[in-house]
Amino acid sequence: MQETRRRILESLSDAPVSGPALADELDVSRAAVWKHIEALREQGFEIDSRDNGYVLLGTPEFGGAGVEYGLSAPFEIEYHDSIGSTNDRARELAAAGESNVAVLADEQTGGRGRLDREFSSPSGGIWISLVCRPDIPPAQAPIYTLAAAVATTEALRDVGVDAGIKWPNDVLVDGRKLVGILTEMEGEADRVSWIVVGIGINANIDADAVPETATTIRELVGDVDRSELTRTLIERFEELRSDPESVLPAWCNAATTLGQRVRVQTSNGDVVGEAVDIEFPGTLVVATDDGDERVSAGDCEHLRPT
Amino acid sequence: MQETRRRILESLSDAPVSGPALADELDVSRAAVWKHIEALREQGFEIDSRDNGYVLLGTPEFGGAGVEYGLSAPFEIEYHDSIGSTNDRARELAAAGESNVAVLADEQTGGRGRLDREFSSPSGGIWISLVCRPDIPPAQAPIYTLAAAVATTEALRDVGVDAGIKWPNDVLVDGRKLVGILTEMEGEADRVSWIVVGIGINANIDADAVPETATTIRELVGDVDRSELTRTLIERFEELRSDPESVLPAWCNAATTLGQRVRVQTSNGDVVGEAVDIEFPGTLVVATDDGDERVSAGDCEHLRPT
Repeated sequence: MQETRRRILESLSDAPVSGPALADELDVSRAAVWKHIEALREQGFEIDSRDNGYVLLGTPEFGGAGVEYGLSAPFEIEYHDSIGSTNDRARELAAAGESNVAVLADEQTGGRGRLDREFSSPSGGIWISLVCRPDIPPAQAPIYTLAAAVATTEALRDVGVDAGIKWPNDVLVDGRKLVGILTEMEGEADRVSWIVVGIGINANIDADAVPETATTIRELVGDVDRSELTRTLIERFEELRSDPESVLPAWCNAATTLGQRVRVQTSNGDVVGEAVDIEFPGTLVVATDDGDERVSAGDCEHLRPT
Repeated sequence: MQETRRRILESLSDAPVSGPALADELDVSRAAVWKHIEALREQGFEIDSRDNGYVLLGTPEFGGAGVEYGLSAPFEIEYHDSIGSTNDRARELAAAGESNVAVLADEQTGGRGRLDREFSSPSGGIWISLVCRPDIPPAQAPIYTLAAAVATTEALRDVGVDAGIKWPNDVLVDGRKLVGILTEMEGEADRVSWIVVGIGINANIDADAVPETATTIRELVGDVDRSELTRTLIERFEELRSDPESVLPAWCNAATTLGQRVRVQTSNGDVVGEAVDIEFPGTLVVATDDGDERVSAGDCEHLRPT
């Protein structure tokens, strides 16, 4: 967001401020103040003019300005009402050298999941892709996926949704999928160039607009302020990526897999047993009849206790 | 290479064969045989016409046909006399879904090394980039880099060059660099989409055309048949990638690092000690004064014994 507009919003958030006072404070003309106020109204900020000055009555439900307002994390928001795929756009930005950009959309018309599967992304969701350029080897990329799952789960719990993570990054409520996460990267064999973390949340969406195995926030707790949820998500992700060692403990709190009997389908066959631990950067330790097995990738199912 | 031409070359490689006999054998017209023979001559195959038929006297020194002739590995060769960067072209092919293509050039005008460093690639070298689509997690990508270093070192030893690998993939002769390897990849957090293995060999090049710290095959043993060396390299790489467990034992034979005192500069500081082992997918084990340390990435220096 433009710096002057950000400062105007800050001034108005406490008490009404007159146009002349704002012009003084920001060292711009009264005409400039008026133009910025108009621009903010167009972005969806509800700003009333009263006798004693301008007053901020409401913020946009969603969109770039709605999310950036009050965001304390170093991400610039690029918002689209509708876009093919936020990950595709984020990859473009990453390839062009950009960093710390969050591509956000109300709707994706060509949403992609893992292995190029289709990913339903109707209007009303939170479809967001974060462009990161960490100095890590590709082997550590899974920690970004885990951080995304943790940040999302915590943001959902904040709005009363009882979400939990199934290893490694499925965010579920009562066994139904609420969130999709797709981490993509490019790099050399021992060094990442960029990572794009795509997170898709079925937010203010009717349940019949998503697959049967999925659910939506609307169905679970009713509609939420998507801007606020998105801010919480980005801020929590920022904290986690700044301190990679904090990710696994946070994951253990947010996940439901540890202590469960699981079946993990891996490229080397199924691993069945009790999930007993997780190790950096996201390896699941399964206690099987033949001892502990470590699984770094695979489809995990929670089984009923025997 | 076109299938009919490949079969013509096979027929001619043993003894002279007449045009009519070739036409019969391949079930094409005599005019078609003549056209294929002309095309092969244009690609640099030396084919003589004698009383008793065509005879193959020589193969092209280099180029797509020169390398593909007799190649027993499932790689198609895309040859360029001159190209910006074989890795860039290979990445384009990979992004378009291609697999098992080797982009080969006599000269690169914009050769790149690790971390986007410039990489000198004059005419007379072997600049090759292999497009692979293995079903592995990004964490295992280093095994491809090691396989490339092993394949190259073995191919060089075959032509009398006493090359050895410094961990992880520097191919050196008497401490001077003969080969550059740049592995690039794209994928999801736990699954590679493609890997491009770029290998650059200072082959038939004057020593004064490469950096002071480098050397060339011409300087060491004189000019070599680049087509043959390239075939050996590709075939050996193919064997290694088909059997990932064979890579580390082969690396131990081709490398000079184990048993050496080393200093490895890592992002967490220097690790100094004796290199005692290598672990999948390429982690160096260094015996330091404080016990064994495992290093997965870093710049390695061989130190003099204390």
